[in-house]
Amino acid sequence: MFTKGEKLYEGKAKIIYETLEDKGYLVYFKDTLTAGNGVKKAEVLGKGEINNQISSFIFQYLKDKGIENHYITTISAREMLVEKVEIIPLEVVVRNVATGSICRRLGIKEKKVFSNPLVEFYYKNDALGDPLICPNHIELLELASNSVVEEIKGTALKINNLLTELFEGIGIILVDFKLEFGIDKDKKVILADEISPDTCRLWDMEKGISLDKDLFRKGEGDVLVGYTEVLNRLKGRI
Amino acid sequence: MFTKGEKLYEGKAKIIYETLEDKGYLVYFKDTLTAGNGVKKAEVLGKGEINNQISSFIFQYLKDKGIENHYITTISAREMLVEKVEIIPLEVVVRNVATGSICRRLGIKEKKVFSNPLVEFYYKNDALGDPLICPNHIELLELASNSVVEEIKGTALKINNLLTELFEGIGIILVDFKLEFGIDKDKKVILADEISPDTCRLWDMEKGISLDKDLFRKGEGDVLVGYTEVLNRLKGRI
Repeated sequence: MFTKGEKLYEGKAKIIYETLEDKGYLVYFKDTLTAGNGVKKAEVLGKGEINNQISSFIFQYLKDKGIENHYITTISAREMLVEKVEIIPLEVVVRNVATGSICRRLGIKEKKVFSNPLVEFYYKNDALGDPLICPNHIELLELASNSVVEEIKGTALKINNLLTELFEGIGIILVDFKLEFGIDKDKKVILADEISPDTCRLWDMEKGISLDKDLFRKGEGDVLVGYTEVLNRLKGRI
Repeated sequence: MFTKGEKLYEGKAKIIYETLEDKGYLVYFKDTLTAGNGVKKAEVLGKGEINNQISSFIFQYLKDKGIENHYITTISAREMLVEKVEIIPLEVVVRNVATGSICRRLGIKEKKVFSNPLVEFYYKNDALGDPLICPNHIELLELASNSVVEEIKGTALKINNLLTELFEGIGIILVDFKLEFGIDKDKKVILADEISPDTCRLWDMEKGISLDKDLFRKGEGDVLVGYTEVLNRLKGRI
């Protein structure tokens, strides 16, 4: 049994609580969906439940494959128990195929497949609009040391290999995704946050359609249909 | 004698011509001053002459200190003869003190002195607004190899040491500056473009005032007065 304690942090898609048993943090997945740094916003009934299940599945899968992460267990439809970590304020983006902001920013053709996956860092700072930063900016801002940045990059690429394989097995192309990392009680850097269609771009291999937040960003279809499809395929694989 | 040949390229502040003698390129320094990627624009009579003289002085100084660059000789008030190079489309920015765009972008306090100089790369592409890029983007866009990026970074830091010392000797703080590099006929990477108050931030040590393009960007004073002050101090040092 875990009992919700004090609310620690409310983000755009999740709320983090203490637990009264002091066993970890409780993550509550909200139905709120935002895009464009919160400019576009909607409530999608049931989204939080689906993302909790998808995230739980993926964190357990990664743990089984040797990727340390904050996931402990799923405790309710919308709630996950995780290790207490201090989040490093970096959004780590891995890209296999060019789409979205990188195409606009660098003039790269949509759907260009990268011969090597690209790892980018963004400074997690809503007020500044989460700007792109390079490793030397990370050092300058004292967000993480060079060795931690290198470690995160290596782990992100390992996760990319594992998730690309996982999704390929269920007919989905992992286009890009965002990770966050945290420092645990032993000062180890571990994977944290969530991995879900809110934070990944996932394309159906046959139909080429999005099964992720782009459905909302671009108004291309029913978000829940896409997210549910991802969850069902992941579950069918077990 | 060098005779202007075909116009090869016209930028915001310079025009590049072939020479009929095929000895190199002729760089013509314009009076045009622009800021904000060309949004703010003015003609400042005499600016081109001053920048040609300052750039000539600095390139010769750097050459004497062992920094290979495209400068051959100054051939008229507004014209410089340079080696033919193919410009690498990167703006290499070295920052010693935080001011301007980096403060807005990363929330860094104005005038913060960096304990280590920061080297940043921007993709030289007017249509895209010269976006910030990291070394892995440079590789991805095939603008330069990793080893060339490392070489450029090393040279930029050496230039920073040399110019910081030069300007300190004449009571000026070298706040930040932009460099461009090119590939010469022997495939060597050498310093190119210009180094002038158009491309550097230079603060008078005693008065703390700008002697550079910020006078124009911010409308803080007479551009020519600042630029001329820099030139006179450099000349006085000879």
